[in-house]
Amino acid sequence: MTLATRKIQLDHGTGAALSNELVDFIAETLSDVYVGEMEDSAVLPVQGSRIAMTTDSFVVDPPFFGNGDIGKIAVCGTVNDLAVSGASPRYLTLGMILETGLPFDHLYRVLTSIRETAREAGVQIVCGDTKVVRAGEADQLYLNTSGVGFFAREPLRMDSVRSGDAVILSGPLGNHTVHLLSIREGLGFESRVLSDCAPLNTMIDRLFAAVPPGSIHSMRDVTRGGLSAVLHEYAGRSDKAIMIEAPALPIQHETAMAADMLGINPLHCANEGCLAIFVDPDATDDVLAALHGHEYGRHAAAIGEVTARDGAAVILRDAEGRESTLQPLRGAELPRLC
Amino acid sequence: MTLATRKIQLDHGTGAALSNELVDFIAETLSDVYVGEMEDSAVLPVQGSRIAMTTDSFVVDPPFFGNGDIGKIAVCGTVNDLAVSGASPRYLTLGMILETGLPFDHLYRVLTSIRETAREAGVQIVCGDTKVVRAGEADQLYLNTSGVGFFAREPLRMDSVRSGDAVILSGPLGNHTVHLLSIREGLGFESRVLSDCAPLNTMIDRLFAAVPPGSIHSMRDVTRGGLSAVLHEYAGRSDKAIMIEAPALPIQHETAMAADMLGINPLHCANEGCLAIFVDPDATDDVLAALHGHEYGRHAAAIGEVTARDGAAVILRDAEGRESTLQPLRGAELPRLC
Repeated sequence: MTLATRKIQLDHGTGAALSNELVDFIAETLSDVYVGEMEDSAVLPVQGSRIAMTTDSFVVDPPFFGNGDIGKIAVCGTVNDLAVSGASPRYLTLGMILETGLPFDHLYRVLTSIRETAREAGVQIVCGDTKVVRAGEADQLYLNTSGVGFFAREPLRMDSVRSGDAVILSGPLGNHTVHLLSIREGLGFESRVLSDCAPLNTMIDRLFAAVPPGSIHSMRDVTRGGLSAVLHEYAGRSDKAIMIEAPALPIQHETAMAADMLGINPLHCANEGCLAIFVDPDATDDVLAALHGHEYGRHAAAIGEVTARDGAAVILRDAEGRESTLQPLRGAELPRLC
Repeated sequence: MTLATRKIQLDHGTGAALSNELVDFIAETLSDVYVGEMEDSAVLPVQGSRIAMTTDSFVVDPPFFGNGDIGKIAVCGTVNDLAVSGASPRYLTLGMILETGLPFDHLYRVLTSIRETAREAGVQIVCGDTKVVRAGEADQLYLNTSGVGFFAREPLRMDSVRSGDAVILSGPLGNHTVHLLSIREGLGFESRVLSDCAPLNTMIDRLFAAVPPGSIHSMRDVTRGGLSAVLHEYAGRSDKAIMIEAPALPIQHETAMAADMLGINPLHCANEGCLAIFVDPDATDDVLAALHGHEYGRHAAAIGEVTARDGAAVILRDAEGRESTLQPLRGAELPRLC
């Protein structure tokens, strides 16, 4: 397929294989001016020090939901991308694209969420920008938050994961996706399955304080593409098989029911406040204890390990010990949420 | 008018008075988490040092034009916002919202412009993010570039402007707006009036090297809202009248003709590569000489001064010495370009 006939498809935005192809195309075209390392944050020298820097655009559908909105997601997304790199999030920028006709009380609600979430996370909004487009040229509003964080510890890299590492999940899978789809499809689950959207930096700080230095090797927040995308990325980087004990996966009962009705797999669903953490197996109990003591980690569980088997793969093992390979998503097997 | 009945209008995005009301509403609602100072860049402490940080979203209509595109504008906009604060631009993030059906060769053109402009400006793209929306939910593509710069000199603030300062304009007014409107309206001026879109950081560096330290008090790039918006902002900050010698304003002949046909005033038109610079009057000749020696400053001119008259106002003086007050724009007297 030549450049002239290829077009952007919705599948390019799902966080699955087609998204990765798009990212590769962008990186290759930008050539030497692109110095990103495909981590959630870039780690950059600043006059004898280091900062973490990240950016994220938000096109949430629907932008307002039961226990949150696009403003809360925007702050949490950028705070979490900085925090999983080992940085303390500090400064956020706020870019807004508003469509004509957006009621001011909707904007007020979004800004109030941004304010409250920024307060909770301890970050400041240092500059902003606003553009207005014609009605229909944005889905009510799009946001961009870029962020800078400081390092009080060594940066965490994806490449630090090694054979034998325990895989810990900090919260239940699928709730954010099921909450939003339930509202969109009128399924009636949205009051019982809430979005997990949350800023995770204070939980991560507590986690580091609770375990010996060096015990935590890497972490990543589970967002677009779900746990499946995160695990496949780690498996690809380490060229090792990651074994997941399917019965250990924390999934709320109503979420499993709704996912079944919707024909989606919680392993592919976006979360907005859930971490996959790779740790020294000796630290597993301490990590779980620290997470369980925090509001956003109450349902944390050890879900598997990085094996010594060569070859990137994600393997699910059921209660009877039968293994199956989890295939990476290619495109839009899931409706777009973000 | 209560919050419940107010809605976003196109006029909120023009850079004129309604834009300022929207920015005030945002800042007030964000309350103490917003620490921006309404400068083009925020100046922020980083572990014993300082950085400049800025953000801008780009919704250019049309996104592709004769001598540039939204990609070039996005890099120039963020580079220039950092540079006018006195910082050396270093790191850019790149957020892209793409609509379904966007041909890959359009994306390729934008990315190529980003690459070439980043190379010219000496900045790196350190991280990126891509979202895909349905056809029609974005005008082909929207970009966000956020940036970080370092300080090799003291930051420049708007508040540093004082009575007696000479006002220098680094390039001709109105060309970017006339170029884009000519394409949109089919006027046929677009081959003779080119966009001035350019990264100005190397010209600014050369300028600082050419004059005694402390001669340059403040500068701002002339973008949305035009020179009028910039001058009104400085007049408001200093509470002094700014006197502009109308015959001294550099305006290309074809631009003046086209603006007349379109019924627009070049003083209100967006540029994308033009600076308003406030300098010690003794340094005027050195500043002009340095600008004239640079590709992007060939048409620089001294256009007026900050007077000792109290009260924020922008006054135009014609060739016969008659004075008239330039009124700030309220809303969308100009069609939206960005």
